[in-house]
Amino acid sequence: MKASIISVGTELLFGQTINSNAAFLSKELNLMGFNVLYHFTVGDNKDRLIKTIERAIEENDLLIFTGGLGPTEDDITKEVVSEYFGAKLEQDEKSYTDMLDFFMTKDRIMTPNNIKQTYMPAESTIFHNGAGTAPGFCIHKNGKYAICFPGPPRELKFMFENGVKEYLKKISDQKMYYKILKTVGIGESELETLLLPLIHGQTDPTIATYAKAGECAIRIASMNKEKETAIKKVNDMILKIRNIVGEYIYGYDDEDLKAVVVKKLIDKNLKITACESATGGMFLKSITDIQGSSKTLEEGFVTYSNISKERLVGVKEETITNYGVVSAEVAKEMAEGAKNNAKSDISISITGYAGPEEDEEKRGVAYIGYKYKDNLGAVKVATGSNDRDFNRTIFVLKMFQTVNNLID
Amino acid sequence: MKASIISVGTELLFGQTINSNAAFLSKELNLMGFNVLYHFTVGDNKDRLIKTIERAIEENDLLIFTGGLGPTEDDITKEVVSEYFGAKLEQDEKSYTDMLDFFMTKDRIMTPNNIKQTYMPAESTIFHNGAGTAPGFCIHKNGKYAICFPGPPRELKFMFENGVKEYLKKISDQKMYYKILKTVGIGESELETLLLPLIHGQTDPTIATYAKAGECAIRIASMNKEKETAIKKVNDMILKIRNIVGEYIYGYDDEDLKAVVVKKLIDKNLKITACESATGGMFLKSITDIQGSSKTLEEGFVTYSNISKERLVGVKEETITNYGVVSAEVAKEMAEGAKNNAKSDISISITGYAGPEEDEEKRGVAYIGYKYKDNLGAVKVATGSNDRDFNRTIFVLKMFQTVNNLID
Repeated sequence: MKASIISVGTELLFGQTINSNAAFLSKELNLMGFNVLYHFTVGDNKDRLIKTIERAIEENDLLIFTGGLGPTEDDITKEVVSEYFGAKLEQDEKSYTDMLDFFMTKDRIMTPNNIKQTYMPAESTIFHNGAGTAPGFCIHKNGKYAICFPGPPRELKFMFENGVKEYLKKISDQKMYYKILKTVGIGESELETLLLPLIHGQTDPTIATYAKAGECAIRIASMNKEKETAIKKVNDMILKIRNIVGEYIYGYDDEDLKAVVVKKLIDKNLKITACESATGGMFLKSITDIQGSSKTLEEGFVTYSNISKERLVGVKEETITNYGVVSAEVAKEMAEGAKNNAKSDISISITGYAGPEEDEEKRGVAYIGYKYKDNLGAVKVATGSNDRDFNRTIFVLKMFQTVNNLID
Repeated sequence: MKASIISVGTELLFGQTINSNAAFLSKELNLMGFNVLYHFTVGDNKDRLIKTIERAIEENDLLIFTGGLGPTEDDITKEVVSEYFGAKLEQDEKSYTDMLDFFMTKDRIMTPNNIKQTYMPAESTIFHNGAGTAPGFCIHKNGKYAICFPGPPRELKFMFENGVKEYLKKISDQKMYYKILKTVGIGESELETLLLPLIHGQTDPTIATYAKAGECAIRIASMNKEKETAIKKVNDMILKIRNIVGEYIYGYDDEDLKAVVVKKLIDKNLKITACESATGGMFLKSITDIQGSSKTLEEGFVTYSNISKERLVGVKEETITNYGVVSAEVAKEMAEGAKNNAKSDISISITGYAGPEEDEEKRGVAYIGYKYKDNLGAVKVATGSNDRDFNRTIFVLKMFQTVNNLID
């Protein structure tokens, strides 16, 4: 079944909000076997919203709308979609009592414009919003489905998990199965060149590569009426790919390197600590993003100034004087000091220039120190970039790569 | 001049990549007075890409494409756009030497499929890519402009800042001016209700409110041939809005609370430290996101386990036993210990449940401790949510809010 996502909201066209909803819904729709053909984004403008519906309905059986169900004046999605499909708005009793409950339990004030949110299209399936005030709904008419979600991602996700997902599973007629292989340490062109013999002339499963900051992914996807057939086709292809580029693959699907590393640390019963300068807490933050990370992390140090490197983890003043604060020697002393203080099994450190830096030689240069058992060392990173966020992202990725290699 | 953004890439329709490019470009286009009407996303599929161009060109003078300029087989944007506008592809000498340079200076292997990237549409304006291998271009025909960018955000941003921006400024015929007021501590409905007298019947400047995790923003926008007129209209409206909801406004435009707080700390010559449990480094990471933050932050502590709270910042064992580790008392001792250790002027701490938690009472509960001069205290946060990322985001926001109130 063909599907498209229509995101409604002038804030998207102003660029003040990044459209993460379209990505979330696309991933879920694909998993359920829907073929997502387009995303459309349109402002809070009736004429252009209608034009978008006309464009989308031409090729699609399922239209998914996000945004514009809010209480305010510029929220028009429900009204326009209902009018387009010829459904009258009527107050929905359940939605009304849900809303009273919402304002009773939260410490927030109910305003008259919230009442407008309890009027729903007649004969539609209504989806409860457990994380906000706007209910969602599905209108099913003339073989077409139109589902409307609220815009805030938390509310949308709640509604998807609690109602819409089951509804969609029932109406889907195909099974799509796909796997993503996550790689690190190889560029996209090189990856595709190596895989070209497999990619050529391949229609099912399809193979595609794409790049993200410092990493590359390979997607293997198969569409079939029988889920088992699709799974088999994908798994057979994964074996072939592993034979060619297996050394670069660290995980699957939504796994990211940090989750893989934290899991390994916990499985091997290893305690980790970190001492961060250039990344200022970003590595520790990434570790603790993972639920259960307290099993491997007890403590960590952010030593942003020279003095704090000496005071907190015992870097020697003369090491900084002799080699400079951004050096392999300082990185090693940071790793060693942190490991001793935290009594951990493994320790990782970083000292570097996140930037921006005037001096071209310094841009994106950092040293990652590590200590694991008797293995004390440091690796240099040089991104060549002057983009602070990018550098810090790559630094943290390389820290995880270093830990991953050490404990493998 | 009316503009739309066409993002090309099956990975977007699979939901594996969030489309941040559309937001970035929209923001910049609006600032230059373009009226962005739509975003379209389409896969690496020739027929549907052509259909999308036809839909977009109907109402727009400027089409901006992102993605599909890469070296691989599924990259078709340049070929399809050039064919649509009747421009032949020819090898561009400058692009070819740029590519040789790129591979010479980086430690990467040039593959034959990179050569395809040096063939550019005849008579187009070519934009150099200083961060990758794919050049961009603009075709100008029959009063319509088609600009193609590479998909990776870093490459796109480089190209925008180094060539495209100047090009667009020249072709823009309107000046849009807008300001965003950032607020914290008030919900969207309540905000709009308070501003309704100003919003009603307002056509220029327009006023819109929108919500993001824990915050709300108000956008005031004016479009005019004369930039000065637009600026005046917006500024007059800001004064009126400030009179009504000024107490909730903490900053403007891209300013976020963390940047505002770091700037204030530096201006007041205050050193800060933090001691984080539930947020595990996220607050410190956010501080050090800001360039120049070393002027206020020397060091910080991640005390994730009970023992490390005692060892690193001197929380008393009996305080944990008597009050529990998630308590105002422990938060206060963490703040006090961190301040003493780091010899800072101000200290902030957090202990809480990031979740997910089975126990409903614990979900999203945290205590933020602070010490500034003789002022030692703690505030409770209770999000009621079981979403780990959301809770940690709100916790950090509240930590910044606490610091902001203390030093104001």
